[in-house]
Amino acid sequence: MATIKAAILGFGTVGQGIYHILNEKRQELKHKLGIELEVAKILVTDASRERVPGTAHLMTTSMDDVLAEPGMQVVFEAIVNEEPAFSYLKRAVEHKCHVITANKVMFAKKGLELQQLAKDNGVFVGYEATTAGGVPVIKTMKNILLVNDVSRIQGILNGTCNYILTKMRAEGWSFEAALQEAQKLGYAEADPYNDVSGQDAFKKLMVLSALAFGEQPDWADVEVIGIDGISAQQVEEATAKGLRYRHVAEVEKQANGKIVAKVEPLLVDAEHPLYPVEDVNNAVALDTNYIGTLTLVGPGAGMYPTASVMVEDYAEIIGKRAGFIVTI
Amino acid sequence: MATIKAAILGFGTVGQGIYHILNEKRQELKHKLGIELEVAKILVTDASRERVPGTAHLMTTSMDDVLAEPGMQVVFEAIVNEEPAFSYLKRAVEHKCHVITANKVMFAKKGLELQQLAKDNGVFVGYEATTAGGVPVIKTMKNILLVNDVSRIQGILNGTCNYILTKMRAEGWSFEAALQEAQKLGYAEADPYNDVSGQDAFKKLMVLSALAFGEQPDWADVEVIGIDGISAQQVEEATAKGLRYRHVAEVEKQANGKIVAKVEPLLVDAEHPLYPVEDVNNAVALDTNYIGTLTLVGPGAGMYPTASVMVEDYAEIIGKRAGFIVTI
Repeated sequence: MATIKAAILGFGTVGQGIYHILNEKRQELKHKLGIELEVAKILVTDASRERVPGTAHLMTTSMDDVLAEPGMQVVFEAIVNEEPAFSYLKRAVEHKCHVITANKVMFAKKGLELQQLAKDNGVFVGYEATTAGGVPVIKTMKNILLVNDVSRIQGILNGTCNYILTKMRAEGWSFEAALQEAQKLGYAEADPYNDVSGQDAFKKLMVLSALAFGEQPDWADVEVIGIDGISAQQVEEATAKGLRYRHVAEVEKQANGKIVAKVEPLLVDAEHPLYPVEDVNNAVALDTNYIGTLTLVGPGAGMYPTASVMVEDYAEIIGKRAGFIVTI
Repeated sequence: MATIKAAILGFGTVGQGIYHILNEKRQELKHKLGIELEVAKILVTDASRERVPGTAHLMTTSMDDVLAEPGMQVVFEAIVNEEPAFSYLKRAVEHKCHVITANKVMFAKKGLELQQLAKDNGVFVGYEATTAGGVPVIKTMKNILLVNDVSRIQGILNGTCNYILTKMRAEGWSFEAALQEAQKLGYAEADPYNDVSGQDAFKKLMVLSALAFGEQPDWADVEVIGIDGISAQQVEEATAKGLRYRHVAEVEKQANGKIVAKVEPLLVDAEHPLYPVEDVNNAVALDTNYIGTLTLVGPGAGMYPTASVMVEDYAEIIGKRAGFIVTI
């Protein structure tokens, strides 16, 4: 049986999740895909700290080292920020490696460029994990777009914000108290600015815009309003009226072809599909011409949901290349 | 450019929808897939009645005639009932045609057999349209199952029942009045027994069970309760308590490996994910080990949603066979 080698770039929560799933599912993936995948390199900034027992010999701080490994064909990337992630993936693609990324900051800006480069090099880019965590919105939309046009995307794209809004309402907590709890649970970063300001949701929205419309609006034209201005008093008043705050990201292709986007807190009533979407869940509603409106809801963050969709990306890439008749 | 030929078996609402979408999207599909698809035969029981202008010369009442067409490679099936649909598809598969079906009655019973036969003949079976109309639950679950285990499936799988329950609540109509309106709008069949008794939802649930667990429960062990016993009085009382009736189909793999299923009306409150799922929408919630619970909501019936997912099945099949490197 063929064995191919993979690298994991970045070994935080998501990187470790990928490693665990690939180990737990080793036999099953081998059986289903007919190929054995071996994690041969793990790229970190400090190779002296063994985060998962038994991985010390796989650690490296050098991308040269990763690409020098014979048989390296798949690169999972779970680094934060645009650089050095993009440079690493560019090199991996030019090395004819398939790449699978969870990096929305990089992909929002460099996604179209990376995909073109991958096409030129005959490899695939998996990016399901960049947007909405465990919710397979990228694959679903790609599939829908084979036949349908998507005209509008509306969603809850940041689990931390939804958790905070949920707790402010259900527990009567202040914004600060809810944020602290989100940090304690590992949902929010130590610096929560990207989450609560709406910047994280905005990046994900731009990934969806590029997929649905082949382009993004001018970033400077997009109004992004966070949830940090919402008071416990406002939440209480909304609740009394049967309404809930949701932090909604929306992008739309107007009849004149212009792409318009915004990110803002909205009040929704019990009839709204986003009303029961609570805690760290994400949701995405796609308006299409033939199917109508399709809504997906599920966990928007976390080690296993995010890592799981990255391994699914890998399985999908292998499935595309394995055993099909090519006479058509 | 390669041209391949397709047949449509059954030319009612869904069959006509396929024909319209293939015509409207002809250039786009050709461009995206690199292959031109031509509808060369339409199988009907009465070939003298031209349902869509310009299709008279494509009509036939003979499956021999369909398969005798040179270059026939794809068969869309939108017939009701198990036979002759299964016999036709069996012949098509043995003729090395890919088959794409919307027939849940046939597929609930013969799906596993048809898929094995297709595998033996090196062709694909698309069956997204058998379950939940435009909601891509089959593709989503197939993808999830590459990495995750699914332990439980819960859903609203019949759009007519959901429409009736919605109207009884929102408009105060009786069951009979809501059913009549559903028939007038073309949601319910002239004989609505399969819808309101839960038999239709049950068949779809069995399709999902076969996919998730590789098997179905013994059909005789599954309790199927319809919505025809729900009175306007009961709905009014539920509404007063903030509750809504939903017709819920559920299948679960228990810890001992036993598959247990049921179909029944349930009362749900505003916190329940099925609460805002109204009108002819369907919904499916999948409990998985890595991702958690993923919920999909969208139109459960109708010409275009159903036909659209069938054309997506076709595009997916072509995509699997086209232009990929096979050295792995």
